[in-house]
Amino acid sequence: MIEKLIEQIKKKDAPIVVGLDPMLGYVPEFIKDKAFGEFGETLEGAAEAIFEFNKGIVDAVYDIIPAVKPQIAMYEQFGVPGVNAFKKTVDYCHEKGLVVIGDIKRGDIGSTSKAYADGHIGWVTVGSKTYAPFDEDIVTVNPYLGTDGVKPFVDCCKECDKGIFVLVKTSNPSSGEFQDRLIDGRPLYEHVAQKVVEWGESVLHGDYSDVGCVVGATYPEMGKVLRKLMPKAYILVPGYGAQGGKGADLVHFFNEDGLGAIVNSSRGIIAAYKNEAYASFGEEGYADASRKACEDMIADINGARR
Amino acid sequence: MIEKLIEQIKKKDAPIVVGLDPMLGYVPEFIKDKAFGEFGETLEGAAEAIFEFNKGIVDAVYDIIPAVKPQIAMYEQFGVPGVNAFKKTVDYCHEKGLVVIGDIKRGDIGSTSKAYADGHIGWVTVGSKTYAPFDEDIVTVNPYLGTDGVKPFVDCCKECDKGIFVLVKTSNPSSGEFQDRLIDGRPLYEHVAQKVVEWGESVLHGDYSDVGCVVGATYPEMGKVLRKLMPKAYILVPGYGAQGGKGADLVHFFNEDGLGAIVNSSRGIIAAYKNEAYASFGEEGYADASRKACEDMIADINGARR
Repeated sequence: MIEKLIEQIKKKDAPIVVGLDPMLGYVPEFIKDKAFGEFGETLEGAAEAIFEFNKGIVDAVYDIIPAVKPQIAMYEQFGVPGVNAFKKTVDYCHEKGLVVIGDIKRGDIGSTSKAYADGHIGWVTVGSKTYAPFDEDIVTVNPYLGTDGVKPFVDCCKECDKGIFVLVKTSNPSSGEFQDRLIDGRPLYEHVAQKVVEWGESVLHGDYSDVGCVVGATYPEMGKVLRKLMPKAYILVPGYGAQGGKGADLVHFFNEDGLGAIVNSSRGIIAAYKNEAYASFGEEGYADASRKACEDMIADINGARR
Repeated sequence: MIEKLIEQIKKKDAPIVVGLDPMLGYVPEFIKDKAFGEFGETLEGAAEAIFEFNKGIVDAVYDIIPAVKPQIAMYEQFGVPGVNAFKKTVDYCHEKGLVVIGDIKRGDIGSTSKAYADGHIGWVTVGSKTYAPFDEDIVTVNPYLGTDGVKPFVDCCKECDKGIFVLVKTSNPSSGEFQDRLIDGRPLYEHVAQKVVEWGESVLHGDYSDVGCVVGATYPEMGKVLRKLMPKAYILVPGYGAQGGKGADLVHFFNEDGLGAIVNSSRGIIAAYKNEAYASFGEEGYADASRKACEDMIADINGARR
């Protein structure tokens, strides 16, 4: 899968991913009015509104970006109808040729992680039939439970040509509380990084592995160290834009080949029309505002990696 | 919420929880035949089969147990229909008066954790209406992202009278890979335990807090230390039975009041009829086998806490 992602990044010349993390507060009134008109102010109505919102953005940007990253929490908050909107979003993005990174941050004991892996990037058997239930291309994984919580996902990478990004150093303010603590003189996140290298060895394709990692844009110095520790792991970089990360901070997340990192922006893209810089697009032009914000982000990031 | 759980534990005299983690392989043929007959060998068929399987078990045991713990991965693996079966299971268990512990192990950056918390133990607003989408009573939470990933769940505990169990030391074989590593001379899990105490302070109700923790039955010596470190945190103890933990191992997970721990068994109860000891019940008697296995487990655990 990593080869497919790299191919898309090269083709679009854009090492970025758009985080499809729709809050109802981001959705323009005209979309909500239509959805609530049809389904009422219900969970189904909310789910329809966020799906239509996503669709507009995807239609506006799919030709200039390689990948999207729907954050499942934003769908799951609307219950079963929300999860259905997540699945519809995955399918719609696939129709548009995008690589879909499911930001699910799952991780559990072995047999349970296998169920998550099968459901999201593998397949399940029902009687004589098999299904790929959610069918994302890549998912994010939480490493707190250790190797046997991650291995079922690696197995799916191998068997189903998929990928994972393992949380190493997250972008949030309190990520250091545990992740930065020193163990034998090195922060926990470096120990996790070492495991990421091990886990990725069996799914190497050329210069990169199907096992990548997550390192927040908000910690550029750590990104520099981690880039060198995991030369073959693609880094998914959240925290750009609304969370405070800038293009110039990201130069060390890339390898010398100009590859090795893909930078996510969520709010900064999908709610661009609410930002002063793109306010002239107005609510009706929210998707065009997202496209312009994407173009600006691509220029900013590409400036940093050359 | 912790008071409600304790009340149920006292009333049933049973500090146990049944893990509703249905694999299709556990479901008797007669249930699958009926479900597949109606919905085909589809994800809907699988979801119907696991829900009917659960229903049979819940009907057979609800009067002798305080709580159930559906593991959402086992539902999520069947996609949207599976998640729907999860929700139906939560609702059915509530109808039977059981405390429902959603084993979801979610955890993300602040705003995203808020979406998970709202969706599972809180409420969301759609226009002028509010909904409690999944409406579990308690959920499990992964602490890798630190305080801002946990706090939104604690806020829901406070506002909606709910509870959480934070992963401290998990039951799986590789849990020690990161959790046991020494930081300032103490294992990481003890540092997480210290945070569990802090997080729980604002939601104390008498002797116990709405913020509990998860410590695997498979690590009794660590359980002994952790019990003392977090005297007011209820411990959810997985790993009993099929994973190897025995009642006698659990004596130190309880406080002197005989409370403070609730022990989970999943496979050992729900697939009891596949175990030699309960094979005489046969497939048709799978739910009765589960009841007998529950009774035996209660006797074993109560022997350890007195």
